[in-house]
Amino acid sequence: MTPTDPGPEGTPPPPTRRRPGGRTARIRQQVLDAVVAELGEHGYDGLTTDAVAARAGVHRTTVYRRWGDVGGLLADVLDAASDDDWQPPDTGSLESDLAALNQEIHTALTTQPPIMAALIAASFRSEKAAEAQQRLWEDRYARCEIIVSRAVRHGELPPHTDARQLLIAATAPLYHQLVLLRTTPDPQLPGRAARTAALAAAAGAFAEPPSACRV
Amino acid sequence: MTPTDPGPEGTPPPPTRRRPGGRTARIRQQVLDAVVAELGEHGYDGLTTDAVAARAGVHRTTVYRRWGDVGGLLADVLDAASDDDWQPPDTGSLESDLAALNQEIHTALTTQPPIMAALIAASFRSEKAAEAQQRLWEDRYARCEIIVSRAVRHGELPPHTDARQLLIAATAPLYHQLVLLRTTPDPQLPGRAARTAALAAAAGAFAEPPSACRV
Repeated sequence: MTPTDPGPEGTPPPPTRRRPGGRTARIRQQVLDAVVAELGEHGYDGLTTDAVAARAGVHRTTVYRRWGDVGGLLADVLDAASDDDWQPPDTGSLESDLAALNQEIHTALTTQPPIMAALIAASFRSEKAAEAQQRLWEDRYARCEIIVSRAVRHGELPPHTDARQLLIAATAPLYHQLVLLRTTPDPQLPGRAARTAALAAAAGAFAEPPSACRV
Repeated sequence: MTPTDPGPEGTPPPPTRRRPGGRTARIRQQVLDAVVAELGEHGYDGLTTDAVAARAGVHRTTVYRRWGDVGGLLADVLDAASDDDWQPPDTGSLESDLAALNQEIHTALTTQPPIMAALIAASFRSEKAAEAQQRLWEDRYARCEIIVSRAVRHGELPPHTDARQLLIAATAPLYHQLVLLRTTPDPQLPGRAARTAALAAAAGAFAEPPSACRV
């Protein structure tokens, strides 16, 4: 959870000695980069802690001690992905914000090598990766709720709009078509799914009745 | 492709001799039932041709010769699933048809043991299973297009409505939440996703402009 925290010094020995701060963070980055590269080249089945260690130029016991197994490595790649300052696009309207968001998702799901698709596939192999994938999506959907609150503020949507359901309706067709149905990528899809969700929202699909106690 | 065709009875001899017709169909059914049972109990990782053969009470070489490997077995389970007379619910309106369809999907995705979820997960492991899963979804979405054509006929939707996109918008949130996001099953989800798609459809989200040559 906090592998980049500086920690207390342990006892020495040479190559595998873990030092706090910069070096720990640097090793983590090297290892996670190696996981992504190996995953992109060989997929889950070709991913081994040994290959990751070799590619990262670190000792295999370092990888083993810190990440445990392939599932632990994948989970850390996914957790590290939240460790950024990503914000959803702010383009001026609900529909165009959703379209821009969907365009990012579409690009991520169709870029070669297919890292995002491989991480999703890995979540069906490893419980640790599945939990980390859930955390990452939760983080992303939570950050995207600002798209809906902006639209509410601008009077585009009623105040009691279920942001999460709206965001899921807008994005789900991309995941369904590209990850599960495995259809050919369709450049119209991001905008079309955004428009569908925006039209449904305008028609009150995600409006929650104000709760009784709020009057 | 037509293993259930009634065929002429062959001559008797012992276990592994393949006879056309009834016995072939019966063996296929025993084997596919065994695949589903093994998958439900042990998941993909516990699925082996030997365990399937033992459970089905057939010789392992029969399984090997006819299905090849675990991927071949899973693909045949998925292909066999299309071999029915399933039709989407006909309840009198677009929204309630979609809600009833979503209820079926929700039930299939949340029933224990989770066979449908396990088959989807298997599609990330086996190319053969992935292709069969695509064929099954294609079959199901094609059969569901009648929901949209009925709604067009009843004047609920404009004539040039993209049936597939409407159906994907209606069903995608279920797959996204239950298969990918792995959220807790929500009994409101089938109806809510149906209503969202119906509202978007009524607002023209899936209306295709009539092509120029049709005038």
